[in-house]
This record gives sequence, structure tokens and C-alpha cells, in this order.
Amino acid sequence: LLPGAQTDIEPIRYEDGRVRYLDQRLLPGVERYVETADWRDVAGAIGTLAVRGAPLIGIAAAYGLALAARSGEMHEAARGLTSTRPTAVNLRWAIDRVVAASGGAADQVATVEAEALRLHQEQIESDERMSELGAGLLPDRATVLTHCNTGSLATGGIGTALGVIKTAHRQGKIARVLVDETRPLLQGSRLTARELERVGVRFDVIVDAAAAGIIAAGGVDAIVVGADRIAANGDTANKVGTYGLALAARAHDVPFYVVAPVSTIDAGTRTRAEITIEHRDEDEVLAFGGTRVATARASALNPAFDVTPHELVTAIVTERRVLRAPFVDAIASVVRPAAVAS
Amino acid sequence: LLPGAQTDIEPIRYEDGRVRYLDQRLLPGVERYVETADWRDVAGAIGTLAVRGAPLIGIAAAYGLALAARSGEMHEAARGLTSTRPTAVNLRWAIDRVVAASGGAADQVATVEAEALRLHQEQIESDERMSELGAGLLPDRATVLTHCNTGSLATGGIGTALGVIKTAHRQGKIARVLVDETRPLLQGSRLTARELERVGVRFDVIVDAAAAGIIAAGGVDAIVVGADRIAANGDTANKVGTYGLALAARAHDVPFYVVAPVSTIDAGTRTRAEITIEHRDEDEVLAFGGTRVATARASALNPAFDVTPHELVTAIVTERRVLRAPFVDAIASVVRPAAVAS
Repeated sequence: LLPGAQTDIEPIRYEDGRVRYLDQRLLPGVERYVETADWRDVAGAIGTLAVRGAPLIGIAAAYGLALAARSGEMHEAARGLTSTRPTAVNLRWAIDRVVAASGGAADQVATVEAEALRLHQEQIESDERMSELGAGLLPDRATVLTHCNTGSLATGGIGTALGVIKTAHRQGKIARVLVDETRPLLQGSRLTARELERVGVRFDVIVDAAAAGIIAAGGVDAIVVGADRIAANGDTANKVGTYGLALAARAHDVPFYVVAPVSTIDAGTRTRAEITIEHRDEDEVLAFGGTRVATARASALNPAFDVTPHELVTAIVTERRVLRAPFVDAIASVVRPAAVAS
Repeated sequence: LLPGAQTDIEPIRYEDGRVRYLDQRLLPGVERYVETADWRDVAGAIGTLAVRGAPLIGIAAAYGLALAARSGEMHEAARGLTSTRPTAVNLRWAIDRVVAASGGAADQVATVEAEALRLHQEQIESDERMSELGAGLLPDRATVLTHCNTGSLATGGIGTALGVIKTAHRQGKIARVLVDETRPLLQGSRLTARELERVGVRFDVIVDAAAAGIIAAGGVDAIVVGADRIAANGDTANKVGTYGLALAARAHDVPFYVVAPVSTIDAGTRTRAEITIEHRDEDEVLAFGGTRVATARASALNPAFDVTPHELVTAIVTERRVLRAPFVDAIASVVRPAAVAS
């Protein structure tokens, strides 16, 4: 069985020198798969968010390198794939790992393919462990709020934050999920809603701006989100809107959990001051489904991420263990052994 | 000259026993005016948000009563118009005022028409005074963030919070405006953007969830918003998303100003605990321009407002004066004399 074939939806697959990916921009209306043997198509899919989610773009980049190994373009591909998204660190981590594995191999193609498939399989296993650990943090009959999409469509496994929710649901602990629609690209109402429907969890979509008032009204027991980059001190870059949720959580003593694999931690980024925030095209904000909604001459700012200071994070759930403050020490304890082992 | 005829756009007009209103749902693409002699059409326009903005729906309701006076349906109309929107207090205030003015008048129609026109004219004058007082609070070269639409389209005058921005712009004090798009109905990118374009202010639209991160990055000097109901202690109900802005403003020491006429203050509402939040149809969240964006079976929660506790409000700008904490005393000082005078 190929990695990911057992999940309810398969956002990416590598087989016989071809990558097959789901174009997530068309969900939930259209389920279109694209097959390619060219790493440039994979880079394009990452850049346009046809393939998105921090762990999944790492896997996609690894598979892109497998294609590039076949065409003898590993170096160009490593550069081209790295430049697609500046904030997510799993992307760079996956590329570095696959490139390192390829070094000096007699059969580079087989080595790179094997490493990419292994990376995907490890993500699936990490998801399972994070989901178990995170579910253990939730109370019974919990109403949980989440942002963006952090499920199978974001990781190729069960998911990170959404994996926690799915696992807690299997354990009978979830009363309801509140799903931030997540403007501008609506990963919540399009993707997270789709995954929750499949597993039968009760949920309601809300506009992102409604979260704070609902939290204030006492309607939320915990917030779980993913991460695109975690600094060495626990500062967390994630989909724009996460920081506002963390502020509301703190104001009303609601636990705020970040769920992400250790590969999302960038020990080389000391604090949030060093995190580059990707700004995307203003048309994502000004248009909707190809139709302009704003006035004809309006311009927009479109930061794709924001940074939540570690002081607002209750715990970071990784596949190794649940990390709590002081985060510098907790993070060092899971990152350093990995750095030595690799 | 009829009230409002001098503003750059005229969202409502009463003339010769007919109300002419702009259907704001179709902006900015289509500028469609609807004319009617039936108060029920006015009530429908308020309920569907074809006519929206706390002060403007008060004016619309007053004009609706003028139509009803002609058809001898004042009592039904007062009831029907009051029930259209439960949170905004200007609506109820305007209806009470026009009904009170009509009591025992020999020529009820002329009395009611005159009172409705006077109410509109007073709103225009209040807007001017609030805008001057509010502009005085802003620093030079200010970047100001605002939410929803609080301009001519919301009041029939220059506007409340957006009136402050327009006036400060005329004084050369505005470097840039950040406009929350304001999901679900996008009053920011559709309406506020339109008004700012007309007066030539530099602005950028952002998704609502981006505000906190931009505030954290130091990019905002002041936040100005309107209000739909202000309790006797200063707790402020306004368009959903306002509370989250206030939390971010407090976290980063950014002044947070509420701009609203004294008619928005409901002295009978002691604190936020007594404010009813209107919940609107879930299709506003799940669909866009008539096209479903969420999954087919998704449901939504759609609170139209949230409440900002007075502790997070730097000042409330009214047409009488700028109110500051302790708000109970400051509010009593502007509300009680009015109650005695009327």
C-alpha cells in the first residue's frame, strides 16, 4: 500500500515516476486530480495552493525531487521548490532531507524515491501520535474551535490539529466543532467542513471575525490549530487569523493548542522577529471565485500568516511529546536529538 | 434641498409620499434605486440589509412611518419596523420619536413627515460634529483601521467612524486606511472602499483575520468603529469582529475609538449582559453571490454583532462630546439632559 492510500482522501501520491495530486482550489465542488512527471508542475501546484498545508507541501516537494532525480534536475528542483513558499519550514526541511539522502548514491533515483516515500509514511505515523496526544488534552463533551485546514488534505495523514479532533471524536469526546471559514481562500468552509462531514462530527462554520465573540460567550472549550513554522522559543507562525484567536483565548482562559510535527520547528529561527511572512496576491482578497467583489480600484494587503507569541500558547503537541512552557527548553529537548540523529 | 442630497451618495430620500432607497446589497457592481409608497417594502429593505447601518435604518424606519401615516397604518408599521433588527437601538429610538411626535396631531401625515425629515437632517449635523471631534483625536500621518461601513451609506450623512476618517483626510492627517473586508457581507470591500475611493483616501482592504497581525507589527495608529448599541456603562455592540479588534488594540496599546450618535446609547441597557445579539441566516456564511462555497451539508452560526466591553474602549465620540472612562458618568451626562429635553 502506498503512503496515504488508507486515508479518507488522498491529496497526493507518488507512483511509477509520476505525482498525482488533488487540486484543492476546486474543492468541495470539483474533485480534480492532476498527474505529472515534471517537478515544475509540482512547484506550480505548491505556489498556487493547489497543494497546501505545511506538512503536505513538504511531502509534495520530496516527490517533486523524485521526479527531478529521474530527469537529472535535482539542483534546479531543490532551488525552485524551496522558493515556492517562504514561511513554511517543512518544505525546506523535506528538501534538505531528500537532497542529503541522495548524496553520492549509486542509484540516485531509487534512493530519492525511497526517501520521499519514507518521509510521507513518517508524516502519517506522526499524525497518529500527535492526534492521540492532543485528544488526551481535551475535556469530555468538548466544543473545539479550529482554523484553516489541518486534516488529511494538509498532511497526507489523518492531520495535525484536525487529526486531534478526529481522534477525540472517535473517543466520543467531541460535542461540536466550530470551523473558522478562513478567508481569503476558505480552507475552513471548503476543506475542513468536507473532512468533518466524512467522519460525521457535528460542526458549524463561522466567519473568522465571529470567533472572539463566541469565545467570550463561553462557547468554546479549546482551540486547536496547526503551524507553518515554530521558532526555538515557541513563537508560532500559522495561517493569518491565528494570533487573534490566541488573544481571545487568553482573554477568556480557553486553552490554545498548537499541533505540529517536530519538522515544523525551526531551531535556527530564534524568535518571531526572524520569521518572514509571505504576502500573497491581492486578488485573493479582492475577488471571490473569479468575480471581483471589491470596488474596481481597490488594493489589498494579503499576509498569508501571522505569528502567535509563545506566551499565548498553552501547549505544542508534537509526535514526540506535549511541549509546555518554558518552551525554549521543551523545544530543545525534542529538536536536538533529531538533529544529531539525522 | 432634501436631507442628504449634498452627500456624495444618497442612500435614502423621502419625497412626495415616496421613499427612494439604494439597494446596498448590489454595490459596488450595480447602483439600483428602489422607490416605494409602502412601509412594508421599507421594513423588507431593512430586514434584508438592502438598507443597513445603525443610523440609516433609524432614518429609513422614520420614513417608513411617514408612508404608513398616509395609509393609516402607523401602529402596524411601528410594530413591523421595530421587529426587523433586534440589536440596533437607533431603529427603536427613531420609531419611538416619530410615533411620539404624531400623537394627537390634527394633520398627522404632515407632522410625521416633518419629524422624519428633521431626524434625517439632525443625523447629518450629528455626523459633522462627531467627525470633527473624532478627527481631533487622530495623530498626523495616521494609519487608521476601520471595520464594516460607517460612512454615508450607513448614516445618510458623512458617516460616523468613516466620517472621522473623511474629515481627518480633508485636514491632511490620514496616511492610509486599512479596511476590514467585513465578512460575511463585505461591507468593507464593497461599501467603505467605494466611499474612500470617491474622496481619494489611500487605502488597502484586508481580510478581517489579518488585522491582529498587522496591529502587532506596529502598522496601525488608531482603530475607529461605529456602534449598533451602547449600554449605559459603555459596553458596545457593533458588527461582528469589533471585539477581536479591540482585544488586539489593547494588546498593542493602539487607541480604540467608538463613534456613534447619542441615539445609539440605550440607557435602559445597563451592561452587555442585557444586549440581544441578532443571528442571521446561515447562507450569508455558506454561500457567496448565490453560489454555495461551503460543502453541501455544512451548517453555520452567523451572529451579526459582538460586544466590546467598555474596558477596551479608549473613547466614545458622540455629537455632544468625547466620552471617556468612567463611562457610566460620561454617558449619563449626555443621555439624561436629552431625555429631559425631549
